[in-house]
Amino acid sequence: MGAIQAALDAQELTDHHCHGVVTADLPREDFEALLTEGGVWPGISPFDSPVGVSVRRHCAPLLDLPRHAPIDDYLARRAELGWREVNRRFLAAGSTDVFCVDTGYTPDRLTTPAELADTVGGSAYEVVRLESVAEAVAAKGVEPAEYAAVFRAAAREAVGRPGVVAVKSVAAYRTGFDLDPARPSADEVTEAARRWLAAGGRLADPVLVRHLLWTAVDLGLPLQLHVGFGDNDIRLHRCDPAHLTDWLHLTAGTIPVLLLHCWPYQRQAAYLAAVFEQVYLDVGLTLHHVGPARAGAVLAEAMEITPYRKLLYSSDAYGLAEFYCLGALAFRRGLTGLLQDRVDADELSLPDALRIARWAGADNARRVYRLPGPS
Amino acid sequence: MGAIQAALDAQELTDHHCHGVVTADLPREDFEALLTEGGVWPGISPFDSPVGVSVRRHCAPLLDLPRHAPIDDYLARRAELGWREVNRRFLAAGSTDVFCVDTGYTPDRLTTPAELADTVGGSAYEVVRLESVAEAVAAKGVEPAEYAAVFRAAAREAVGRPGVVAVKSVAAYRTGFDLDPARPSADEVTEAARRWLAAGGRLADPVLVRHLLWTAVDLGLPLQLHVGFGDNDIRLHRCDPAHLTDWLHLTAGTIPVLLLHCWPYQRQAAYLAAVFEQVYLDVGLTLHHVGPARAGAVLAEAMEITPYRKLLYSSDAYGLAEFYCLGALAFRRGLTGLLQDRVDADELSLPDALRIARWAGADNARRVYRLPGPS
Amino acid sequence: MGAIQAALDAQELTDHHCHGVVTADLPREDFEALLTEGGVWPGISPFDSPVGVSVRRHCAPLLDLPRHAPIDDYLARRAELGWREVNRRFLAAGSTDVFCVDTGYTPDRLTTPAELADTVGGSAYEVVRLESVAEAVAAKGVEPAEYAAVFRAAAREAVGRPGVVAVKSVAAYRTGFDLDPARPSADEVTEAARRWLAAGGRLADPVLVRHLLWTAVDLGLPLQLHVGFGDNDIRLHRCDPAHLTDWLHLTAGTIPVLLLHCWPYQRQAAYLAAVFEQVYLDVGLTLHHVGPARAGAVLAEAMEITPYRKLLYSSDAYGLAEFYCLGALAFRRGLTGLLQDRVDADELSLPDALRIARWAGADNARRVYRLPGPS
Repeated sequence: MGAIQAALDAQELTDHHCHGVVTADLPREDFEALLTEGGVWPGISPFDSPVGVSVRRHCAPLLDLPRHAPIDDYLARRAELGWREVNRRFLAAGSTDVFCVDTGYTPDRLTTPAELADTVGGSAYEVVRLESVAEAVAAKGVEPAEYAAVFRAAAREAVGRPGVVAVKSVAAYRTGFDLDPARPSADEVTEAARRWLAAGGRLADPVLVRHLLWTAVDLGLPLQLHVGFGDNDIRLHRCDPAHLTDWLHLTAGTIPVLLLHCWPYQRQAAYLAAVFEQVYLDVGLTLHHVGPARAGAVLAEAMEITPYRKLLYSSDAYGLAEFYCLGALAFRRGLTGLLQDRVDADELSLPDALRIARWAGADNARRVYRLPGPS
Repeated sequence: MGAIQAALDAQELTDHHCHGVVTADLPREDFEALLTEGGVWPGISPFDSPVGVSVRRHCAPLLDLPRHAPIDDYLARRAELGWREVNRRFLAAGSTDVFCVDTGYTPDRLTTPAELADTVGGSAYEVVRLESVAEAVAAKGVEPAEYAAVFRAAAREAVGRPGVVAVKSVAAYRTGFDLDPARPSADEVTEAARRWLAAGGRLADPVLVRHLLWTAVDLGLPLQLHVGFGDNDIRLHRCDPAHLTDWLHLTAGTIPVLLLHCWPYQRQAAYLAAVFEQVYLDVGLTLHHVGPARAGAVLAEAMEITPYRKLLYSSDAYGLAEFYCLGALAFRRGLTGLLQDRVDADELSLPDALRIARWAGADNARRVYRLPGPS
Repeated sequence: MGAIQAALDAQELTDHHCHGVVTADLPREDFEALLTEGGVWPGISPFDSPVGVSVRRHCAPLLDLPRHAPIDDYLARRAELGWREVNRRFLAAGSTDVFCVDTGYTPDRLTTPAELADTVGGSAYEVVRLESVAEAVAAKGVEPAEYAAVFRAAAREAVGRPGVVAVKSVAAYRTGFDLDPARPSADEVTEAARRWLAAGGRLADPVLVRHLLWTAVDLGLPLQLHVGFGDNDIRLHRCDPAHLTDWLHLTAGTIPVLLLHCWPYQRQAAYLAAVFEQVYLDVGLTLHHVGPARAGAVLAEAMEITPYRKLLYSSDAYGLAEFYCLGALAFRRGLTGLLQDRVDADELSLPDALRIARWAGADNARRVYRLPGPS
């Protein structure tokens, strides 16, 4: 085992963007539904996919099964052990000691940040999803003319809770990034709020999405942005992060912006990270979906021009404990392979490689979010 | 030779999208014109390209010439053997026993589906190109108000012919995919037909292209869509398949949609295949143009998140018998390399690898098109 | 050492697009500012990036330092040697004997083409940046109705200077390529000139940018176009070169068009080079920023379908002498690796590989620009 692998294996990761894990035993259809960003379709098992193959390869042994165990064996053993033991084993295998948890999506069925971190004795921080804050404001009832102030107050209150280190937006899902970059006027916001509050539904008005992004700027915390790969609610071409360029110019010197997932726009994200001081990126979610077999290739593209202080680790794990393990595994394997190849080719010194591994694995996140520990 | 290579070499492929082969001896300029998606330009031989290099490397030996034979030798030997023998040799080398043939583009100079398949004792199915049906309707003469009904009847008649298993659209060439996804109203279609029938020319009106796609939905057969790479009649950015997202939502639960070629949007196509039940993809045409040296890299991107039941094989061979051989070779080599590497790294079990190879090589196509044999 | 490496190491390159080198000793902040397309940001050294690592790895030994030398040692030794010796060493290491120099961006602080070439006894040619010509016309004062004629005369005069072989446009920076492809009318140009001359600033009016591109057609010299990667003044998605398709149709049969840099759109550029006679490409700038560790991967994508007479070498080096060396190194290493792998796999014959290397390294540029020597 090389020094880089040893270092990355020994290093506890900081997962700067994840969700909770389900606190229930999962029937097969529920497990399969969580395994895929698609659906569960007749005649096509979600296990017959790169991520499904990775689960059978890498997760089965952690349940005392042979590598590549059959699906039925896997699910039977999972049920036998029960969700508490399963979650404990996979989270422990991820060797992650800091979790920044997005609590804005279906929190009811998931662990809280503290519960998640407690499973492995780690530290938990919270990421506030601003669309959820806005939608709670609407649900509670608000006058259109008051919307901006009430939303801002609610967001300020939410980020004032202990342990909150960042906010997040899923603007990518709601409108995409091909938005007017300018801060909307108060009148525009009131008018848009009037339309939205009358029509109901989730926040997807372009004016209100812009207003939300500018509210993030006012809050002053780092902003996580979903970019690229997700379920079929995305219009992929509309969340090419290059569309953010004008907004990044307007907001330069304010808040850090963290581009999440990014695939298949990892090169576009890398470009932004290379030319805007405030931009950072990860390839979370992507890594466990493509699996260890392709994680190195995706990371290599993401790192083609990205400054080494700009790449972060996240699992973006949601629901299945397997993903905390697979995300970490794919990241460690992918980055180890990439760095070791460069050291072997004498393109990179070993001390530099170890530094890059430490930075990406934990220190860059600590620096951006001002977490305790070395940054 | 590994088990995967042996299995893929032994497996007869199902080519779910190809055209006929030219039934004539080809003077050099005609051969060169068929070799490239560009043109034959002074001072730049189409042989000086990845596909040209592949022809000299892999096809020359099948004409009893040394590997990498000079162009003149290659063309002289090709002429000496005559087109019947040349076609027989290259088709046989492709080890393909099922051909789904798009008969809508310049059928006069090409083999019929039956002639193509008979060359190697295989089975032929037909794919009806809907633009050709619509243009035949216009050529025959039709009142604008009758266009929708007459086109639909003609399409129904065409797909009612024995052996028809799918329809195809080249909307990518005519308008791109950044279309209004909604089904156009009868009045809109009549008005658009009035314009088109008065102006003449090929079908490229956005309303009529939408109408054609919705007619495909009504026909109920799988729909093949040209995506990405083609000749210079394409506006590449307008056929990013992500633009189809809203249309795919509207047509969910109806017909399978097969994204053809896809390069350089193979990741976008993979995303759609991963999140929409009805979406499938191939990297045909691309594979013989990039050649065996890059087929594995392109397949690896196409397969990054694609469910293993969603990848199909096609050659998209047109005109030159060489392409049936090269497409099959690049697919077999590329997929063998990719799967073998994963088995060697213990990221994939050998039985899984063999299953994926069978599925992609034939069974996925059999399943989608309901062809005889295992699916 | 293989025959391909030997040949590429021995071959003097033709750098068809570069800038001058700074003729002054550089304090650390100036050096760092030139090292990155981003800025110099607190807490993030531009050396902690792929290009920074490459400088320490490959350039340090040329200053008599160990590989991977610390930054402070590197900059101290650079200062000690002085800019003349530093420039001489790095330019010599690049083994480039022909330089086509874009003289339109901050020429005052840089070597002239002749000074650059004289450093290594090479030949210098000039590339006239048309935006600079237009802006000089505006600066000098011109009536709106005279703008088109005066700009054309100034451009004609500029390209009539001895040694001018091409023109260049940075339309990518000013408007992107999603422009009306048609030649603007005289009235449109006058009206746009009226607006621009009144408002001042750089040339960024869409009508005037189109007019500039059409003026390039009239001049009859090859046109270099910045594509893709650059600093944060770019809107990356607006310079996908596929947007040029309609303009390339309208200008077919006139001037060669050379797509520069191209990343992350190297495949889109390759598509255009494969289907339009007049289109050529390079991956300059990109190669030294991604470094030798990724140069082969980027070249492999750029060459996936590019005809072998369509790929050129450029460094796009600007300011730092290191870039002339690193650009050439990354190109030689990347191309050697790619060609050698194909020869080793018997996908390419050695004579073909050597020919492709010669063409890309020098002959293709000689052919397009009609430079002396073999083409």
